[in-house]
Amino acid sequence: MYKWASDLFPINRSLTGAGVRESLAYIKKLLPELTVHAVPTGYQAFDWEVPEEWVINEAYIENQRGERIVDFKNNNLHVVGYSSAVDAIMSRSELDTHLHSLPDKPDAIPYVTAYYKRKWGFCLTHKQRSALPEGNYHVVIQSQHIRGFMNYGEIVIPGESSQEVLFSTYICHPSMANNELSGPVVCAALAKYIGSLPKRKYTYRFVFVPETLGSIVFISKNIEHLKKWVVAGYNVSCVGDNRAYSYLPSRHGDTISDRAALHVLKHTDPEFDRYTWLERGSDERQYCSPGVDLPIASIMRTKYGKFPEYHTSLDNLSLISPDGLQGAFDVYCKAIEIIENNCVPKTKIMCEPRFSKHGLYSEKNTKGAVFGSPERNIMNMFSYCDGTKSLLDIANLIQVPFHNLLPVLRQSIELDLLEIQDQL
Amino acid sequence: MYKWASDLFPINRSLTGAGVRESLAYIKKLLPELTVHAVPTGYQAFDWEVPEEWVINEAYIENQRGERIVDFKNNNLHVVGYSSAVDAIMSRSELDTHLHSLPDKPDAIPYVTAYYKRKWGFCLTHKQRSALPEGNYHVVIQSQHIRGFMNYGEIVIPGESSQEVLFSTYICHPSMANNELSGPVVCAALAKYIGSLPKRKYTYRFVFVPETLGSIVFISKNIEHLKKWVVAGYNVSCVGDNRAYSYLPSRHGDTISDRAALHVLKHTDPEFDRYTWLERGSDERQYCSPGVDLPIASIMRTKYGKFPEYHTSLDNLSLISPDGLQGAFDVYCKAIEIIENNCVPKTKIMCEPRFSKHGLYSEKNTKGAVFGSPERNIMNMFSYCDGTKSLLDIANLIQVPFHNLLPVLRQSIELDLLEIQDQL
Amino acid sequence: MYKWASDLFPINRSLTGAGVRESLAYIKKLLPELTVHAVPTGYQAFDWEVPEEWVINEAYIENQRGERIVDFKNNNLHVVGYSSAVDAIMSRSELDTHLHSLPDKPDAIPYVTAYYKRKWGFCLTHKQRSALPEGNYHVVIQSQHIRGFMNYGEIVIPGESSQEVLFSTYICHPSMANNELSGPVVCAALAKYIGSLPKRKYTYRFVFVPETLGSIVFISKNIEHLKKWVVAGYNVSCVGDNRAYSYLPSRHGDTISDRAALHVLKHTDPEFDRYTWLERGSDERQYCSPGVDLPIASIMRTKYGKFPEYHTSLDNLSLISPDGLQGAFDVYCKAIEIIENNCVPKTKIMCEPRFSKHGLYSEKNTKGAVFGSPERNIMNMFSYCDGTKSLLDIANLIQVPFHNLLPVLRQSIELDLLEIQDQL
Repeated sequence: MYKWASDLFPINRSLTGAGVRESLAYIKKLLPELTVHAVPTGYQAFDWEVPEEWVINEAYIENQRGERIVDFKNNNLHVVGYSSAVDAIMSRSELDTHLHSLPDKPDAIPYVTAYYKRKWGFCLTHKQRSALPEGNYHVVIQSQHIRGFMNYGEIVIPGESSQEVLFSTYICHPSMANNELSGPVVCAALAKYIGSLPKRKYTYRFVFVPETLGSIVFISKNIEHLKKWVVAGYNVSCVGDNRAYSYLPSRHGDTISDRAALHVLKHTDPEFDRYTWLERGSDERQYCSPGVDLPIASIMRTKYGKFPEYHTSLDNLSLISPDGLQGAFDVYCKAIEIIENNCVPKTKIMCEPRFSKHGLYSEKNTKGAVFGSPERNIMNMFSYCDGTKSLLDIANLIQVPFHNLLPVLRQSIELDLLEIQDQL
Repeated sequence: MYKWASDLFPINRSLTGAGVRESLAYIKKLLPELTVHAVPTGYQAFDWEVPEEWVINEAYIENQRGERIVDFKNNNLHVVGYSSAVDAIMSRSELDTHLHSLPDKPDAIPYVTAYYKRKWGFCLTHKQRSALPEGNYHVVIQSQHIRGFMNYGEIVIPGESSQEVLFSTYICHPSMANNELSGPVVCAALAKYIGSLPKRKYTYRFVFVPETLGSIVFISKNIEHLKKWVVAGYNVSCVGDNRAYSYLPSRHGDTISDRAALHVLKHTDPEFDRYTWLERGSDERQYCSPGVDLPIASIMRTKYGKFPEYHTSLDNLSLISPDGLQGAFDVYCKAIEIIENNCVPKTKIMCEPRFSKHGLYSEKNTKGAVFGSPERNIMNMFSYCDGTKSLLDIANLIQVPFHNLLPVLRQSIELDLLEIQDQL
Repeated sequence: MYKWASDLFPINRSLTGAGVRESLAYIKKLLPELTVHAVPTGYQAFDWEVPEEWVINEAYIENQRGERIVDFKNNNLHVVGYSSAVDAIMSRSELDTHLHSLPDKPDAIPYVTAYYKRKWGFCLTHKQRSALPEGNYHVVIQSQHIRGFMNYGEIVIPGESSQEVLFSTYICHPSMANNELSGPVVCAALAKYIGSLPKRKYTYRFVFVPETLGSIVFISKNIEHLKKWVVAGYNVSCVGDNRAYSYLPSRHGDTISDRAALHVLKHTDPEFDRYTWLERGSDERQYCSPGVDLPIASIMRTKYGKFPEYHTSLDNLSLISPDGLQGAFDVYCKAIEIIENNCVPKTKIMCEPRFSKHGLYSEKNTKGAVFGSPERNIMNMFSYCDGTKSLLDIANLIQVPFHNLLPVLRQSIELDLLEIQDQL
């Protein structure tokens, strides 16, 4: 995953344009079944419209000595996204009205966009900006806004059921790593992993969309299907650093996506950060909006807006790591395991089974089974298999990871001690 | 309001009698539509009965030198309410069995009544009582208990709906200010304010009753009407000092009256005192009693029983203030605004609206909308406009005052982005 | 109760056998109506089977000098329960594989059983074990496993209703006091007390069973009856010491048994220990198992597993006391009082009654009724008598012991102020 992120890092992505297409082509090499959609400029999606495509060739600021002191070639964050074309000579003070920098982060180039306004600007470190001498500057942006397309990628991995688990991530951010190359590479790895499973209960759909507009367009094209079939899912973002785990709920907050996420995170890192719906900021805003109402939550490493390098050039490849990506991948795999396997078990035995007789339990005084021991966990699990609680509910009630109970469940069904009351 | 309280302060009010009528006549000058009801002695109201009317002309204690050392003319708290007549000479020690004072508040004259017993007594400061020398005293109370009336005032301000908001306050306390001239003057001001509004959704009913018996009589005469039409309301008491805000719930605790009160108080004074139903002590005891079950809560400044001057001569005009009264008035106006305007909004747009397109939102990266900013509040509000939550619910969920959301709601309806699902 | 425990203490009880029969015969002297059941070896109860009966005559270890250094006659904990016969001479080290002791409690003989395995063993203090010299030992256990019976006792005390309150306790532990002679003697006392009452609303059933297997057999023989009629009940265990009160819930946790227990304990000892279902360990495991689902909770003194003497020879008669037993007895009596008398009262009076008129209340200003005073409690009780809350709910809401409200309830019904809406 880290290698993929490194390959994708230098590409200049934006809401639309060649960078997005190049990135999707790279992902298609990893996931040959990926379909790349193209939605034309002017397409109406609910309250929104696909804007013109942005084409940029060159952008720089030259000082009086003809030196390119800021150059888009060096870092694609240097240009405000969707900047209109300019070729002008102007004073230091006029130039300054088009510059963006962060006084409190003097070494960071900020990430700025202006999709729906025609203006232009450059981003640079505050250190560099402060050092600009008086004098005239030659400012060049060779960009165009053309009737073109907004692109997104989609892959469907069929399962036994038409019910779907939806993963969405975004591919509109230029050279930044945690937010957001981590999401696309973790989603690519999850899609490969799910595709490699011998069988799946659910169908899995992954989409790689430009944030906000992309998810709105995707929803608008598939609303009936999504509302009918999606039973769980996640918006995957900020899954690359190794500093924290965090959770952001769906709007309803108690869907299976939420409950699986909370369970896995509690057993992965009890100190995980738990955010509220009011702190949301990515495509769950669309997936969970009233009328759409999909069960989409987020499991993240350090959440957008909560790390100092956020939306600057400091969110680079050194911020993310193989371990960080792997941690997120593992947590999502465990959440998927819960979604795939949750069910409502019901005991077929009145009173406690004699566990030792069935080999579920080593022969000893059951009173000796200390809290947390495998024996106690089996006793506790059976005590709640009353046909009204899911295995996930039971795992929470008895404070044991779901993946520890799953083998016991399967063995007990084999032994005809339990039956499955209801598939969830 | 403070002026009205000052005018009313010297009048000798009791459960019945001329003082109540004089006070109601004063309020009728402020609210010409006020109806003054007269309920005769012997009237049965549920488990209660209107007692004889109490008439008092004079009451004093003379010492051996013929000096009036305690005189009802100086302070109408000096006589125990409903005292029977007496004209006798008695020793210091016999007199003492008829005296009431407060050792721990040596400068306060206590407020004592004995409505349902025939006895007599005087109240005085403990300082004065302690200084009484041995010797004989001449004790005079010229009072009568006659077949007469219990009076109360009522005003109805019609609205678009026959559903009613009920305000009740009490006018039986003699010369005390926070408890209780503040209630009548704030209610008079609220009635004037509501009457002055161009339109009202609800009908408003204000009653000025003697405490306990007055509200029981009022309920007994109107029980069917009240149960059918009253949707919200408050018992207004102790709304004059400037030391605290407090809340006492209705019996059910989650009526719109309660929720409006809690919302407004939280945004007015986060340190407000929150009492429980077990700490009640005024006419909510009747309005919320089983079988009556009206949605009557209380917003107060410092609650009865919780300030040291309570039920003594120290609860005088210096305890209350224009600011104290105004604070209570403002809070009640905001609660009324909620009751009048609460509704269930539902978005007409799938996914998020493009707020900037509609002028609801300044053009900027929505991610930049910091928690608490107007932009974020609009996003948050829309995210909950799913047709299942009231605007008050939403205001609580997103932690924004209701009155800040109301203009956004109105503008959004105007722009056809929202519709009202249900009037509450 | 302490006397009974002392009499029963020396008897060698086990899952089956003469000791159980002798113990039940003793209880039958206290409760002549007791029926002693005998269930034969091989009887199938759900997933379990009654094993062979264990007969033991003699058991000892002799040293080379022919001295009996460990003898079952001195303490019946010395032999592992259900030990098979042995008569052999063996070395110190071979013997050691059959010894059980507790290094961290060097003066305690542990309690060990092996009901479902054929093996033998001795238990002794760690001090004694450590002092055993090298050399040969003569080991003798004269025991037999024969086709016989498992016994249990049962007594039914009829009430007005066929609905039942079930008490279960266990009689399989050899010479130990808190766990478990306290349960049988407290149950015997409760049965005598209930039988002595002039009338009872409910029928009471007490069973004295071997733990686990006994309750499973009892349930298997009576499952339809129990599920139809049992409305409340307790598993009575560890009710003899005087160090703590504790509570273990039924599986559902909110049955009347639970609510009565919690209410009584809160008012008996606010510091009582509150355990969860996950910390269970006695016959509630069977009574509350899925499909059986009886409302069986436990009120204990110090819970099994939570006192250092647990399951050793140190849990002897000096650990329990008349005060300890009496405390448990009293708490159960109060819980029974709640179960018998809980009901849903509804006021027949609109607004507050004039309590003083009815003699329920001394004549005084009701506002003067301070929180916690009898007058305030009556006001508070009536304010919740709306026909939707039980007297126990009301007692909890107004923070007053149930047994303080019961006389007021009865007097109010007498005075025709209240009616009973619903028997619970």
